Amino acid sequence: MMGEGLTVLKVGGAIVEDPESLRQLISDFAAIQGPKVLVHGGGRSATQLATRLGIETRMVDGRRITDDNMLNIVTMVYGGQVNKRIVALLQAAGVNALGLTGADMDIIRSHRRPQRNGIDYGWVGDVDRADGDRLASLLRDGITPVIAPLTHDGQGNMLNTNADTMAQTIACALVPHFTVSLRFAFEKQGVMGNPDDPTTFIPHITEELFAQLRADGTISGGMLPKLENALQALRQGVAEVRIGQTVITR
Amino acid sequence: MMGEGLTVLKVGGAIVEDPESLRQLISDFAAIQGPKVLVHGGGRSATQLATRLGIETRMVDGRRITDDNMLNIVTMVYGGQVNKRIVALLQAAGVNALGLTGADMDIIRSHRRPQRNGIDYGWVGDVDRADGDRLASLLRDGITPVIAPLTHDGQGNMLNTNADTMAQTIACALVPHFTVSLRFAFEKQGVMGNPDDPTTFIPHITEELFAQLRADGTISGGMLPKLENALQALRQGVAEVRIGQTVITR
Repeated sequence: MMGEGLTVLKVGGAIVEDPESLRQLISDFAAIQGPKVLVHGGGRSATQLATRLGIETRMVDGRRITDDNMLNIVTMVYGGQVNKRIVALLQAAGVNALGLTGADMDIIRSHRRPQRNGIDYGWVGDVDRADGDRLASLLRDGITPVIAPLTHDGQGNMLNTNADTMAQTIACALVPHFTVSLRFAFEKQGVMGNPDDPTTFIPHITEELFAQLRADGTISGGMLPKLENALQALRQGVAEVRIGQTVITR
Repeated sequence: MMGEGLTVLKVGGAIVEDPESLRQLISDFAAIQGPKVLVHGGGRSATQLATRLGIETRMVDGRRITDDNMLNIVTMVYGGQVNKRIVALLQAAGVNALGLTGADMDIIRSHRRPQRNGIDYGWVGDVDRADGDRLASLLRDGITPVIAPLTHDGQGNMLNTNADTMAQTIACALVPHFTVSLRFAFEKQGVMGNPDDPTTFIPHITEELFAQLRADGTISGGMLPKLENALQALRQGVAEVRIGQTVITR
């Protein structure tokens, strides 16, 4: 928790795929002071390209089954189309961006996910480690990493990888070098007691409050793993996590 | 012409698109001693993807007309598919590769080619400069840049760019830092007096010999600009250029 402040921002596919929200993102991200890292998704564009190529998209529990054809598509879309569009726009906004996958400079290594409950996810990676020293060195040289949700296994294969997990792993790997703030852009204002009622927005969650909100059923479903991951990052030394405008601290 | 030896190798699309020749390239490139840079093409894969998407490929004088759709395709294919495949394979071969386009870290800046003779090439870039200092700093850190034939204009646009020109520009930009050897992989043995007769292979060309071979018509057609570019690189301080196994020096 020492050192200069650093921001790791994760944005989902919906934001980077719509020209208007992408423009807003570039402007907002460029305005963030200090060193920063952007981690992006791109799932809708991958699904669109797959459809145009007559390739079926299969999802299990929100995760994309990634066979050879789908790996080729996500490598093109995440690593090429989406990543380079963001890099070129950030350069124009005065941010010295560098597009990376986990394979580039061996920044993030993962292993192919083993079959679970008889489901073979294909070329999907579970993250093993991020090279925080290398990323810190780039950041100190004034470079802003822009990271696509792809890693590699060190044996020559790219792996489709969850962007939330990558952002969290990167944030934790940078803890020895910076005071790290991890932010997840979110379609809603933040964590809500009732997702359909804006007045139930929860501005600040601590470990203690989370235990309470989970016990009384206020927080459930897909928000549970998000908050559990956030608390795990905090335990590993990340200074604060934000989900939308909700601030999470220990 | 001082300093450690460095190799810039340019390989065309045909080599990186065939699995067998790609494997050979990875092994040969990994075996090159000292710092090195790989610049690759990928045109056939781009044409294939365009065809599958029902997008027409139009070429003028061997250059691809690059409208919005085609720019999207080459960004996906060159910057994603081809580049990341090479990077992952090099990592597996023990080479700490970093995939780059000209936009990444603003390594290579270009401008959109103006209309010529009424031909609008679209999003095609003519190279203005490469950042040799940044590339040298990466190389000294043990990083091997793998460069896709894409640049940017600094105004947020990616530009489709000739890989030969990029290799030459990078080689010249690295002259202040290394003794640079620029190699063009080539489907034939090298420069030939008669392309159809292997016995006419020319092992060594100097500026003087080139003038002679051009004057007597031994070298003509597409080989002329290749050799003119090679001699230009030599005049800018590159130590030697190879086209296949033909060595070109001043």
